[in-house]
Amino acid sequence: MELTPPDIVRAAYAELVVTDLAEARRFYVDLLGFVVSAESDTTLYLRGYDELIHHNLILRAGPEPAAARLAYRVRAAADLGRAEAFFAALGSRTARVPAGDTPGVGEAVRAEDPLGFTVEFFFEAAHAERLQQRYDLRRGAEPARMDHFNITVPDVRAAREYYASLGFGLSETIEDEDTLYAAWMFRKQTVHDVAFTGGAGPRLHHLGFFAHESYQVLRICDILGSLHAEAQIERGPGRHGVSNAFYVYLRDPDGHRIEIYTSDYYTGDPGHPVLRWSVRDPRRRDFWGHPVVESWYTEASAVLDLDGRPRPLQADKQAAEVIVGADGFTR
Amino acid sequence: MELTPPDIVRAAYAELVVTDLAEARRFYVDLLGFVVSAESDTTLYLRGYDELIHHNLILRAGPEPAAARLAYRVRAAADLGRAEAFFAALGSRTARVPAGDTPGVGEAVRAEDPLGFTVEFFFEAAHAERLQQRYDLRRGAEPARMDHFNITVPDVRAAREYYASLGFGLSETIEDEDTLYAAWMFRKQTVHDVAFTGGAGPRLHHLGFFAHESYQVLRICDILGSLHAEAQIERGPGRHGVSNAFYVYLRDPDGHRIEIYTSDYYTGDPGHPVLRWSVRDPRRRDFWGHPVVESWYTEASAVLDLDGRPRPLQADKQAAEVIVGADGFTR
Amino acid sequence: MELTPPDIVRAAYAELVVTDLAEARRFYVDLLGFVVSAESDTTLYLRGYDELIHHNLILRAGPEPAAARLAYRVRAAADLGRAEAFFAALGSRTARVPAGDTPGVGEAVRAEDPLGFTVEFFFEAAHAERLQQRYDLRRGAEPARMDHFNITVPDVRAAREYYASLGFGLSETIEDEDTLYAAWMFRKQTVHDVAFTGGAGPRLHHLGFFAHESYQVLRICDILGSLHAEAQIERGPGRHGVSNAFYVYLRDPDGHRIEIYTSDYYTGDPGHPVLRWSVRDPRRRDFWGHPVVESWYTEASAVLDLDGRPRPLQADKQAAEVIVGADGFTR
Amino acid sequence: MELTPPDIVRAAYAELVVTDLAEARRFYVDLLGFVVSAESDTTLYLRGYDELIHHNLILRAGPEPAAARLAYRVRAAADLGRAEAFFAALGSRTARVPAGDTPGVGEAVRAEDPLGFTVEFFFEAAHAERLQQRYDLRRGAEPARMDHFNITVPDVRAAREYYASLGFGLSETIEDEDTLYAAWMFRKQTVHDVAFTGGAGPRLHHLGFFAHESYQVLRICDILGSLHAEAQIERGPGRHGVSNAFYVYLRDPDGHRIEIYTSDYYTGDPGHPVLRWSVRDPRRRDFWGHPVVESWYTEASAVLDLDGRPRPLQADKQAAEVIVGADGFTR
Repeated sequence: MELTPPDIVRAAYAELVVTDLAEARRFYVDLLGFVVSAESDTTLYLRGYDELIHHNLILRAGPEPAAARLAYRVRAAADLGRAEAFFAALGSRTARVPAGDTPGVGEAVRAEDPLGFTVEFFFEAAHAERLQQRYDLRRGAEPARMDHFNITVPDVRAAREYYASLGFGLSETIEDEDTLYAAWMFRKQTVHDVAFTGGAGPRLHHLGFFAHESYQVLRICDILGSLHAEAQIERGPGRHGVSNAFYVYLRDPDGHRIEIYTSDYYTGDPGHPVLRWSVRDPRRRDFWGHPVVESWYTEASAVLDLDGRPRPLQADKQAAEVIVGADGFTR
Repeated sequence: MELTPPDIVRAAYAELVVTDLAEARRFYVDLLGFVVSAESDTTLYLRGYDELIHHNLILRAGPEPAAARLAYRVRAAADLGRAEAFFAALGSRTARVPAGDTPGVGEAVRAEDPLGFTVEFFFEAAHAERLQQRYDLRRGAEPARMDHFNITVPDVRAAREYYASLGFGLSETIEDEDTLYAAWMFRKQTVHDVAFTGGAGPRLHHLGFFAHESYQVLRICDILGSLHAEAQIERGPGRHGVSNAFYVYLRDPDGHRIEIYTSDYYTGDPGHPVLRWSVRDPRRRDFWGHPVVESWYTEASAVLDLDGRPRPLQADKQAAEVIVGADGFTR
Repeated sequence: MELTPPDIVRAAYAELVVTDLAEARRFYVDLLGFVVSAESDTTLYLRGYDELIHHNLILRAGPEPAAARLAYRVRAAADLGRAEAFFAALGSRTARVPAGDTPGVGEAVRAEDPLGFTVEFFFEAAHAERLQQRYDLRRGAEPARMDHFNITVPDVRAAREYYASLGFGLSETIEDEDTLYAAWMFRKQTVHDVAFTGGAGPRLHHLGFFAHESYQVLRICDILGSLHAEAQIERGPGRHGVSNAFYVYLRDPDGHRIEIYTSDYYTGDPGHPVLRWSVRDPRRRDFWGHPVVESWYTEASAVLDLDGRPRPLQADKQAAEVIVGADGFTR
Repeated sequence: MELTPPDIVRAAYAELVVTDLAEARRFYVDLLGFVVSAESDTTLYLRGYDELIHHNLILRAGPEPAAARLAYRVRAAADLGRAEAFFAALGSRTARVPAGDTPGVGEAVRAEDPLGFTVEFFFEAAHAERLQQRYDLRRGAEPARMDHFNITVPDVRAAREYYASLGFGLSETIEDEDTLYAAWMFRKQTVHDVAFTGGAGPRLHHLGFFAHESYQVLRICDILGSLHAEAQIERGPGRHGVSNAFYVYLRDPDGHRIEIYTSDYYTGDPGHPVLRWSVRDPRRRDFWGHPVVESWYTEASAVLDLDGRPRPLQADKQAAEVIVGADGFTR
């Protein structure tokens, strides 16, 4: 019997463990410009300027950098039970988390998913103050909202199938005759809520936050250069082939990777067609053909299990996407 | 018994009757930058650069300017029957249109809706060539896709209730203690697929097309100024209070009003909160407080019935939103 | 015998009298984003982010709003004597101001010029810290530097002739067969350092500050809207016909008018051709044909003489530029 | 006796030899968006949208790619004689070129300068039609005007001294205790009309064209990606440390390097202070710290002598600027 998956609305927030909360606050709040929804001695709750729920990002102080969980909002309270049953049927360990455990969020179900990530599903959410039109408060990249999770997995095809079983649509891929190197999947009507990068996993590749205009992507780079923090600009700004988005990848003080992402497209129609990129098209990762810095392919954040312990890594099970050109650059 | 409404996906396209197709082609294609999907001696099928269905706009030559129909895409073939039953139950005249009647679109149901508009529902759609990344072809405002229909109705409250019965969510309003002056309602995860402006109706107030960045809004104005066609720039560019979008309103050679619209926000979460603007807030229509030119409140396009005849107008049933300031400007 | 005028380099700074220094600081520093070079209980010295001299704007607390002086930098110390002789020959009252009178500026010559304005000429200037690449400090409209003074005069032709005698080049005009309605004149290689608007004078019409990109003009409007200070956005944003600049006019808390101005053009070649706009071209003041709000033509700041007393006004000596359209709007 | 140098106004145009004029036309006109001022079977005369003289770029068909000459405009006819005497005194071969030799340009003096480049000086210039406000014609990067020449020389210090003797001001440098690696020098009131990159020379490193806004830099990259011509995007877009400009470097079909350049700053004040960058600051070449692709340091265009023959190369006389990081990238 096939189980009904929970009706997932979108990627809503992630929890990162950071080793120096003050340093993380400076990066995410003072420089990137996130709004502080709540904070304590050990934890920061941040959201973008458009966001109407409590947070898009939890930063929790801890001994080692890690991604603790990826949280999806579901459409109704009944989806919590569906999530529990769905993951139980997959043999995943699950936990029911009472309302109040996380500020601004109601009861939740967490699971160690088949890919090795701790995922969370919640329905109830307190509405945050609407700040979209408080331009006087905006700073940095003016992040608007959580856009997507990008996760590193040893088997991209398996990841795509698991997320398809959760009801995600497929928008774009990087592939060749034999291998699916990367895939982008969505619930909300954008290119993705989750994407998969091939590599040893489970690891979090990056968190993508939406901004409204290109100049916001440029400005955060200028700010980092101003502070001689240019080493935190890992890749870009540039135009993605996949998704068409204008992007930059930053590394936070613990090495967690953040993408500021703008100008992708609507995917909400039935039968939305998949865009398949050849792994041999040098424009797939950067539409302007620029090489991808090696760290972008090799580095990612450890993920934690339901008990907060690091998950063991599995080696990549498939061919590497990385193509080393005649010039020694990867593309 | 309550009928199940068709599961509407989004505002997909509109058909306008224009009196000089060559003039209209120059405006929409050469200046605004729409892509021509198909054309004949009497009809032009246009789409935006992101659009993956056949068209967002049909321009058909005719003796008098008019808006012939507003077409919504539905989620499944079975929604056609639901639409037929839904409107029949409302006492609306309906018609089943066979596939092939409109290029690129399958079988459709049309209805004379309770507000007096000819609305169409279709499911099947041919996929158009993906041109989003053909930046070499882009011109003008680089319209990306249909965003919304704005219709002029004598009773905004009645319009809101009718569209709520069709399953639309409410994102924003302009109101006071007594009157609902305007409302914005959505199916796709943006601020609106349809909005209502109070006034004698049924008339089409404007068609809104999405662009990705503010500079595209500025550029179409510069192009019109270059050609001494500045009189076609009716209002803006500016920032809307409602929707937060950056906008400009243009008038086509027949006086049909077109909005280029960018930077609104995600509305896809369950329980998305409504933003209610006071009619006394001078920022509601223009966040920068600029007066609204009178024609914007008073002029709109006639609409046609199922037989292509102009619908009679009903006078405004409610208080006018227009506020005349001490300086003689409306706001 | 014709006197050698001082070799003027550019419009450098202006001094405004404001009635509430704290309010002015909030507007110019917190909102517009000027850099504070120095401040005392009674005076603020502000500059743009690109500026390498001490200040572009002095705000001094006083009982009535006024423009106290317009200061031009000259090429060499010897130009101070030339300025003194030049104005003495014109019958203008002059004063030699010792170094130290104004922070950051060396010895200066001031004159009550034939148009009734107090103008200052200085050569020596302390270099301010270079902040152009401190993007982390930028706020608001990110003003880069003083661009120009726009002054209201009863006789534009006389103003043009006087400034031509000071060595200014003419870049653009608004005129018809009989009347010169407005003129733009330059020393640095841009469209202007000074411009003349016809009207009762002498009054300061506005101070123009350069910004690098259009989004900075849009953003300051968004910020003012956010704070419900939209009434301070007097006119624009828009594209000027004259100068091609993208602009907005703001009113400070005392009613002084400030322009944020970007994207004009290079005028440094010998024999730079003059662009003459017909007063009947509706694009001359706004390339998009939008009407000019009446206050923009009628309101301006009083100016002070060498002793700090308000100058008497002379009525307009020429035809008014204002054209009232059939719709009641001025253009 | 020291000779009076000609009073140079600015870098005005360059002549490039290209091997396929049709291909070059497609790149410069159809893609980059230059305006065609005149053309013949063998030669194209191009200008930017702001430019008021006849051309900024001559493309001449020839057997081998080369830079034939770099042309500066001078302030007066008498400067031609001054140029002739100045270069004769340096022992440079010169030639007087009659009006009519180059369309749109009057009589000129050419010289084989001490650095090995053929430089030209002209005063008279026909005014071209003003197209700045023909936004309807704009395409591609919307180049506005010639901004600067960047030349590769074996001895940067010698180049700086020679150009100082021609009256150029120094705006920025890259240096360390021992070596001047690069320098930027100006006549017009911007960061430069000419700059020097250390390397085997004489070669032309690139021609820099001014654009008004960042989006124009991004758009030309998107256009090149669209046409699968991404390999012509050599470096950037990015923010320069030096000059603060937002830039991209493109390679034309013959490998000539073109920069689209926006947002540098005013340098027209007397005593404009020099900004000295340490060669060890990774932000000097890219403010965001990104590595410089090796070809940018090593490749450049051959230059021709007065008779149109390629100049022999002299090896670099100084330490290379290139710093190879631990990651193998140059910076």
